Amino acid sequence: MIDLRPVGYVIGLLVASLGATMAVPLAVDIWAGNGHAAVFVESAILTILTGGLMALACANGVGQRLTIQQTFILTTAVWVALPIFAAIPFHQGATNATVTDAFFEAMSGLTTTGSTVFTGLDQLPAGLLLWRSMLQWFGGIGIIVVAMVFLPELRVGGMQIFRSEAFDTAGKVLPRAAEIASRISIVYVTLTAACAFSYFGVGMPFFDALNHALTTVATGGFSTHDASFGAFSGAPEYVATLFMVLASLPFVRYVQLLAGASHPLFVDSQVRAFLLVLVVLVTSITGYLLVAWDAPFGTSIREAMFNITSIITGTGYASTDYQLWGAFPIAMFFFIGLIGGCAGSTCCSIKIFRYQILMAAISNQIRRIHSPHGVFQPKYDGRTITEDVISSVMAFLTLFIVSLGVLSVLLSMTGLDFMTSISGAAAAIANIGPGLGDIIGPAGTFAPLNDLAKWLLIVGMLVGRLELMVVMVLFTSRFWRT
Amino acid sequence: MIDLRPVGYVIGLLVASLGATMAVPLAVDIWAGNGHAAVFVESAILTILTGGLMALACANGVGQRLTIQQTFILTTAVWVALPIFAAIPFHQGATNATVTDAFFEAMSGLTTTGSTVFTGLDQLPAGLLLWRSMLQWFGGIGIIVVAMVFLPELRVGGMQIFRSEAFDTAGKVLPRAAEIASRISIVYVTLTAACAFSYFGVGMPFFDALNHALTTVATGGFSTHDASFGAFSGAPEYVATLFMVLASLPFVRYVQLLAGASHPLFVDSQVRAFLLVLVVLVTSITGYLLVAWDAPFGTSIREAMFNITSIITGTGYASTDYQLWGAFPIAMFFFIGLIGGCAGSTCCSIKIFRYQILMAAISNQIRRIHSPHGVFQPKYDGRTITEDVISSVMAFLTLFIVSLGVLSVLLSMTGLDFMTSISGAAAAIANIGPGLGDIIGPAGTFAPLNDLAKWLLIVGMLVGRLELMVVMVLFTSRFWRT
Ligand SMILES: [K+]
Ligand SMILES: [K+]
Repeated sequence: MIDLRPVGYVIGLLVASLGATMAVPLAVDIWAGNGHAAVFVESAILTILTGGLMALACANGVGQRLTIQQTFILTTAVWVALPIFAAIPFHQGATNATVTDAFFEAMSGLTTTGSTVFTGLDQLPAGLLLWRSMLQWFGGIGIIVVAMVFLPELRVGGMQIFRSEAFDTAGKVLPRAAEIASRISIVYVTLTAACAFSYFGVGMPFFDALNHALTTVATGGFSTHDASFGAFSGAPEYVATLFMVLASLPFVRYVQLLAGASHPLFVDSQVRAFLLVLVVLVTSITGYLLVAWDAPFGTSIREAMFNITSIITGTGYASTDYQLWGAFPIAMFFFIGLIGGCAGSTCCSIKIFRYQILMAAISNQIRRIHSPHGVFQPKYDGRTITEDVISSVMAFLTLFIVSLGVLSVLLSMTGLDFMTSISGAAAAIANIGPGLGDIIGPAGTFAPLNDLAKWLLIVGMLVGRLELMVVMVLFTSRFWRT
Repeated sequence: MIDLRPVGYVIGLLVASLGATMAVPLAVDIWAGNGHAAVFVESAILTILTGGLMALACANGVGQRLTIQQTFILTTAVWVALPIFAAIPFHQGATNATVTDAFFEAMSGLTTTGSTVFTGLDQLPAGLLLWRSMLQWFGGIGIIVVAMVFLPELRVGGMQIFRSEAFDTAGKVLPRAAEIASRISIVYVTLTAACAFSYFGVGMPFFDALNHALTTVATGGFSTHDASFGAFSGAPEYVATLFMVLASLPFVRYVQLLAGASHPLFVDSQVRAFLLVLVVLVTSITGYLLVAWDAPFGTSIREAMFNITSIITGTGYASTDYQLWGAFPIAMFFFIGLIGGCAGSTCCSIKIFRYQILMAAISNQIRRIHSPHGVFQPKYDGRTITEDVISSVMAFLTLFIVSLGVLSVLLSMTGLDFMTSISGAAAAIANIGPGLGDIIGPAGTFAPLNDLAKWLLIVGMLVGRLELMVVMVLFTSRFWRT
């Protein structure tokens, strides 16, 4: 029997902390005097009490460190427990959401997916809008820490290739997870502040600037307006593009930058590959808009930059319904969503480094044509890719495709058409947010879906955010064997 | 500089042989007295002459054996050269096809894809119909020999795991490729004959029985009727199901069976996994048809069996437009096409053994949770999966997904909708035949597509049939380095 008390203790503390942060939207609603403050008082008390009691109840079982099994359970349980409490304000507040809708929105927030079941965002009380944005912001920093500290230890998805990196930044060994987490948090807060000021500087109202900064740096994609970035055409789109890109780079490189390393971003092959892919895609879509639609150059490049960056980073803002651009961009946007940003950022999906490892494996195969009996080791960023990493990346890719297939088929069983099913499954598992088609596309929402479809998507978001394997192993009998 | 003469020599001989086989449709047209015989005389002379001259011109460069590089070039060049000559009767004959259409049909035949650009099949001269079926039959045996003899040597796609198997059948070492090829041919011919007699026995006219036997055993899917198997509802569907399944099993097991091995099929884990997947899928679709459509039990199970087997084996016959069954079967059929049959059969797509290797890698990862520092070797069918195999399977999977994505996007650029683009790309790369949607779905044809789309699909069929890597390496500079 696995001792679950250490897991319960950490989750209790995190739930209580989440409750404490409800003071922020509470303060906003009091200051706004909109009469919606009470819901956050009630939610905060309930959340802090439950979390605190849970931590107390489990405190006597806390040892020195977590086992691998406990770490797997903790990681998944955090992303199940927090949305339950984060959902309370949506259920009790002005949105009056059903249990399903409230949990969907909270899960979509904390996993930084950004699919929404709410319409009439522009009329919602400020506190509730800020709460949505804050959930994404928490989810963003949470996943960076998990990706840097936990996943390499759990050896899932090939993230173990970044193992030494996390503990050896800029040549100095940083042995403690807390140290890394705190340094990354400084970077995260700084980026968010810079983003908020930039939005404000180019004319976005302060409240919108703050909310969009929180969801930009988290590559989350929640907006304060039904029209998403359609409400902020022009300069704010350039700001968003810049910060979405910055949020998609490996955060450990920023930590190294602060520690005085020279060009840590430039030497990272993942960063170079990501930027190259971005430039190629933006150029081709800009060209397409210029030629096929005879659009003005300024608009073409801005719309291409903003929307492609939004999808490749999995942010999911929309400035326009790109489905109106024709059949070519639709198929392209679907596959762009399967690329993703860099590992160690807030991005989800398959991610650049996995494609690089896959390409290294392919190039290795070609090398063997000339020396059939030679043994070659594929390399990533100068380091040898071990068999362990190759097999983890392969496991990730398989689970990704199988999950996508199974979720698409299950969604289609709820009555959704082919395009909605397959793009909805991808939008959830890759934590992108919007899908394709009339219902869940960039101009729609997830509100019209039935409850079964919403629960399927909730599972997809959770499983996808935790790199699939973390959740899947919990459903194997081998895992629970002691 | 790679010496291309040995390659040219083999191709010349194969082209000349293809020309010689044109005597069969020629004889049929003469016997039918339909006035269409002349086209095969002309085509045969042209093909035999060109092939013979090519072989003669290259004969002085033929050495003892082919290098790895020459083998790669040969494998691809065969599947480019043969369709060129196989297309002549379509261009010159009653179909009066454009160069694009004729080449598309020939490539679709020789790669056993079975997508067609011809309508009015029921009115075509018998010789031309037989020629289409013969092309698939040649393509089927051709790919088994390539998969058993060449691919393990080239170490692509993980097929090297079957290396010893090909040369060690039923305990006896068979060192020569020609020996294996001839034994497999005996099995192939026997299966085809049995299939033809069975079709004839359940009431199919002799000519239809022959043609469908040729395309069933090749899992090719060309039919002699526009309605495909819609014209043969009932018992012929059961015969087709049986022989499609038989054609999807590893042919080396039949060779072992003939050599006296006991239960060679039953001990093959690939065979067991394939049959299990098939039973699960048929059961679920039968259940769906019974519940959702209140269809009679006999019809439900027959239609489910026939259509699922047709898609999972990549044959591509249709007995009914399964798109009318609702949204759920559509999404399901799309993903079923990505499964495929067993390696060493006429099937294409990802194939069962790759999923098994992927699952072994995943299960290996889970095992490490309990012993983080242990080194485990994943196993397939009792044998250790080497790093080489894992990395080849990964390369295959990556190329498969990337090719699917790129081809989908390119097809959408020709103006096709999302569903047609993505399902058309899958139908070509996995050599299934029909796609989804109104145009290329089970009730449609590829005729309405524009020439650019057809050429893109031609490339997709070729690259997919040769397990992607075989063709792709030819486009790397490293390959041509001497
Ligand atoms: K997102
Ligand atoms: K086929």
